Amino acid sequence: MRYDRSIAADWKDNLRVVLVSTRNPLNIGAAARAMANFGFAQLRVVNPYDVAFREARSAVGAAPLLEAAEEHSNLADAIADCRLVVGTTSVGHRELHHPIRRLEYGARLIRRALARAPVALLFGSEKSGLSNQDLSHCHWLLRIPTAEATPSMNLGQAVALCVYELARDPKAVNARPARIAAATAAENEQITTMLLEALNASGYLNPVTAGSTEEKIRRLVRRLEIASRDAPVLLGMLRQILWKLGRGE
Amino acid sequence: MRYDRSIAADWKDNLRVVLVSTRNPLNIGAAARAMANFGFAQLRVVNPYDVAFREARSAVGAAPLLEAAEEHSNLADAIADCRLVVGTTSVGHRELHHPIRRLEYGARLIRRALARAPVALLFGSEKSGLSNQDLSHCHWLLRIPTAEATPSMNLGQAVALCVYELARDPKAVNARPARIAAATAAENEQITTMLLEALNASGYLNPVTAGSTEEKIRRLVRRLEIASRDAPVLLGMLRQILWKLGRGE
Repeated sequence: MRYDRSIAADWKDNLRVVLVSTRNPLNIGAAARAMANFGFAQLRVVNPYDVAFREARSAVGAAPLLEAAEEHSNLADAIADCRLVVGTTSVGHRELHHPIRRLEYGARLIRRALARAPVALLFGSEKSGLSNQDLSHCHWLLRIPTAEATPSMNLGQAVALCVYELARDPKAVNARPARIAAATAAENEQITTMLLEALNASGYLNPVTAGSTEEKIRRLVRRLEIASRDAPVLLGMLRQILWKLGRGE
Repeated sequence: MRYDRSIAADWKDNLRVVLVSTRNPLNIGAAARAMANFGFAQLRVVNPYDVAFREARSAVGAAPLLEAAEEHSNLADAIADCRLVVGTTSVGHRELHHPIRRLEYGARLIRRALARAPVALLFGSEKSGLSNQDLSHCHWLLRIPTAEATPSMNLGQAVALCVYELARDPKAVNARPARIAAATAAENEQITTMLLEALNASGYLNPVTAGSTEEKIRRLVRRLEIASRDAPVLLGMLRQILWKLGRGE
């Protein structure tokens, strides 16, 4: 019964973002804000510099999430209810004590696990990341695929990337936006006609080559892929120019 | 000739990240750092608060990228060489003056464009984002898919998400990490045998049910999915325990 209910719960509620020994209050705030941006709510901090945590709590924005954040004095307590514990790193190779998975793939495994049970995602301190002792609590490591020359990420940005990738909708890659309606052939032809009139009135059209020029201009108007809603605007402009040229209807 | 060379160039060099009217030096620094993390180099700032830009330049980390950043007094100059100009927003609906594409899909279009020509990606100020005038320079808008309740993102994190999504390797989603070699059946059986000996020596095994217990324990050992490299460690532990129990070989 209990198990069923935990399956039914929103999977995002199962994620615990755990910040270990964070020093900079701005980073705690940034982590909280990114979590809120992507619909995650459970933040836990382990052994933060006291001042950092208090300052972050009193900062503006994302306040409810930070106020609800749990503070723990050690990592084991902070992750006690989690059935999967994943550490993050932006460095390619620590010694291979753990399987390391790239963010794109690892996030998928975490999403699956979140559908069933609480998962902890650990972020280390700004200076040195997660310690070997912290890492020994992890089932595996998630690697953010940064460039080799500049691997080390800002903590707030690292949290943002991870929660974004977890919330990312792969189907949205193929989702095309609602198209803006293209002008009808009638609208395009009206614009073409009026443009030709204006060009004729202004002396742009050479009477000898007028026929081929008309075709060129007709094609040019189609290449512009004018939106239906822009057609009246363009027609209005042309009408005004024609009027000024003394050819207005 | 020229065109061919520009195709051959690294596509990442074609991206110009353009920060418009940024106020906070930390955000300029964070943007530069995220760009370096994902292999992009061309940062341009338009009309920044002077102090912000100077402070960001003098900050530690990501320095070469910031030092090379171009400063422009207006947006038109900053994007003059670009053939596609995309504005970013985390808000769902401005009035629909532009097509809006979600990050997952829009980044794919930008990547394609980057293979051929310079592309500008615009980020507005922390307070109000891009102005309508800034947006009028854009071909379309890129929407970061934040939660409706908390749509507004930190600027440095928004830049990080965009450059990450551009550099993201969709194939890495399916790339499995190198597997750690599983223990051989012989190793598992050696562990099982030694564990049974230890359990027997310690009085855990009931002689009446020993047969079915042995099977349970054999199955349990297989469920642990012991890695080959861990087998000698476990055997060493068991050997020591057996020795202490007075049954060591």
